[in-house]
Amino acid sequence: MSTEMQEIVLASRPEAEPTPENFRLETSPLPTPGDGEVVVKVHYMSLDPYMRGRMDDAKSYAAPVPIGGRMEAGAVGEVIASNSPHFKVGDFAFGMFGWASHGCLPARELRKLDPSQGPITAALGVLGMPGFTGWHGLSAYGRPQAGETLVVAAATGPVGSMVGQLAKKAGLRVIGIAGGAEKCKMAVETFGFDACLDHRAYADARALRKDLKEACPKGIDIYFENVGGKVLEAVLPMMNPHGRIPICGMIAWYNAGGLGEGASDAALTGPNIWRNVLVKFLSVNGFIISNHFDRYPEFLKEVGPMVAKGELRFVEDIAEGLENAPTAFMAMLKGGNTGKQIVKLV
Amino acid sequence: MSTEMQEIVLASRPEAEPTPENFRLETSPLPTPGDGEVVVKVHYMSLDPYMRGRMDDAKSYAAPVPIGGRMEAGAVGEVIASNSPHFKVGDFAFGMFGWASHGCLPARELRKLDPSQGPITAALGVLGMPGFTGWHGLSAYGRPQAGETLVVAAATGPVGSMVGQLAKKAGLRVIGIAGGAEKCKMAVETFGFDACLDHRAYADARALRKDLKEACPKGIDIYFENVGGKVLEAVLPMMNPHGRIPICGMIAWYNAGGLGEGASDAALTGPNIWRNVLVKFLSVNGFIISNHFDRYPEFLKEVGPMVAKGELRFVEDIAEGLENAPTAFMAMLKGGNTGKQIVKLV
Repeated sequence: MSTEMQEIVLASRPEAEPTPENFRLETSPLPTPGDGEVVVKVHYMSLDPYMRGRMDDAKSYAAPVPIGGRMEAGAVGEVIASNSPHFKVGDFAFGMFGWASHGCLPARELRKLDPSQGPITAALGVLGMPGFTGWHGLSAYGRPQAGETLVVAAATGPVGSMVGQLAKKAGLRVIGIAGGAEKCKMAVETFGFDACLDHRAYADARALRKDLKEACPKGIDIYFENVGGKVLEAVLPMMNPHGRIPICGMIAWYNAGGLGEGASDAALTGPNIWRNVLVKFLSVNGFIISNHFDRYPEFLKEVGPMVAKGELRFVEDIAEGLENAPTAFMAMLKGGNTGKQIVKLV
Repeated sequence: MSTEMQEIVLASRPEAEPTPENFRLETSPLPTPGDGEVVVKVHYMSLDPYMRGRMDDAKSYAAPVPIGGRMEAGAVGEVIASNSPHFKVGDFAFGMFGWASHGCLPARELRKLDPSQGPITAALGVLGMPGFTGWHGLSAYGRPQAGETLVVAAATGPVGSMVGQLAKKAGLRVIGIAGGAEKCKMAVETFGFDACLDHRAYADARALRKDLKEACPKGIDIYFENVGGKVLEAVLPMMNPHGRIPICGMIAWYNAGGLGEGASDAALTGPNIWRNVLVKFLSVNGFIISNHFDRYPEFLKEVGPMVAKGELRFVEDIAEGLENAPTAFMAMLKGGNTGKQIVKLV
């Protein structure tokens, strides 16, 4: 057994888009499990847009990663040493091990996985934080009703594809937005969206809105917000009265520094956003899924069987090697991935 | 009995602030009640900020007043002719008679008033649309909890004073914002607010926020939005996680034309508003009270006795004469009134 482990730390804070210099690969001794702790060799780690926020020191819902600290991530792997009665060597587990080849955490912070029930990577995507985010945001704040119209961007991503498929099951018209013809094809053919527009094909929000109007002849009742930027700008004037906008992310603005960028049009001034919320009686709810883990068993009970039966599909994009995690992460922030981004370590 | 009536019509649409040229006083024959109709001589009519919106032809929740059409308003008065078994001459009633000396409406659109139960003007303010708006917005979207902090602007107005008094009864710390030292004194002494800041005393949102932070040492849990502009800009960064923002109006922007005005600071760009909603898990709900009239009996049952016992106070600002309604209305949009603005016709 190796006596060393590798991890990727935050070398410096990005100015706008992260660059390779913001990350540093380090080698450190493999920890020995303390009382109640478990050491896991990571097989797959997750890359998610929220990690971009942790790289800034702006006040947000979570503390920033300190300079020199390990980048955060959820990951799945195999137990190689255990000082807890709840895990034995050879078990598989999910935990917040970070960008690292190994992790050592108290057993109570791990969740045991059963590899015979399906691929363990599902715990990072469709049955993990992103899938749960889509399910909770749609059910708690989206409140879908049959016959309504829903729009979600990043349609082939793990949040968007969950939202779109659940909304289709609930009898809604579902329009996706994604980057590139290939993803749009996947949204329709793999995930069953009614249509999907390629945001790269439109010069601005106005042009995108023109085609959205054709795709949504009865307006938009639910806009599941996970990107911000041009899509929000296109969608907001099309919201129907009593529409709902769950907000779980705004990746288009994550690299924007002072957040002034991305607001390409007067439609995105505060007064105009506020006016839309008022005159359309919108319900807008920001949320982070970690405040709602009490619903996770309900999610697993409802969605787990759908995944097992193949009724809910998922797509993964797997990069290889911890050392390639920064490159995969930077590409993901620009939409370079297709499906849930994962890094394979072994 | 007179055979003529007076009304004020919309002569032209305002560019920004309304001017006297936008209104025209006209004389027309007094209508005769048709089957089921009632003619009322108006004693008091209401002036409310929403009427500014009706003067524009922008798409909103209600159709605009047509050029040459009567300005809309709720009003109370005495029945002088009735063709309905439900009303007799001498009864008092509330109805949407508009800016007019008399009104003729179907009996089913009127609400009978009992002058022995208190001043009939209460039906225009504390027990009418504005008071109901404050009660519904606070209970349905504000969801106040004892120990929390609430901020409301236009603190001495009929919405703000209802919200503040109800929140105090629910055990919240209540901070008002109003225009001028006299109104601030009234908010504290008459309506029982914990403190009230004079927005005119601050050059910008940043200065206002500085004092708001002293007044709200534990941050802000509920911001009841009825003004927009500088107050929103000051408040938004102070919202606590899981805060709530019911939006019933944004008078600061009603005269802004393209709505670009009033956004004095980068804090009010769309991305920044959206970011605040996301990272603070805010719940933002636009609403118009006319969609919630099913709750009106519940409101009257709960709030009526409080008003009767003097537990809930209200202040009225009464102008005299239909011909002076435009001047009173234009002044109200600039905060020139103190308390519920009413026009006395007889």
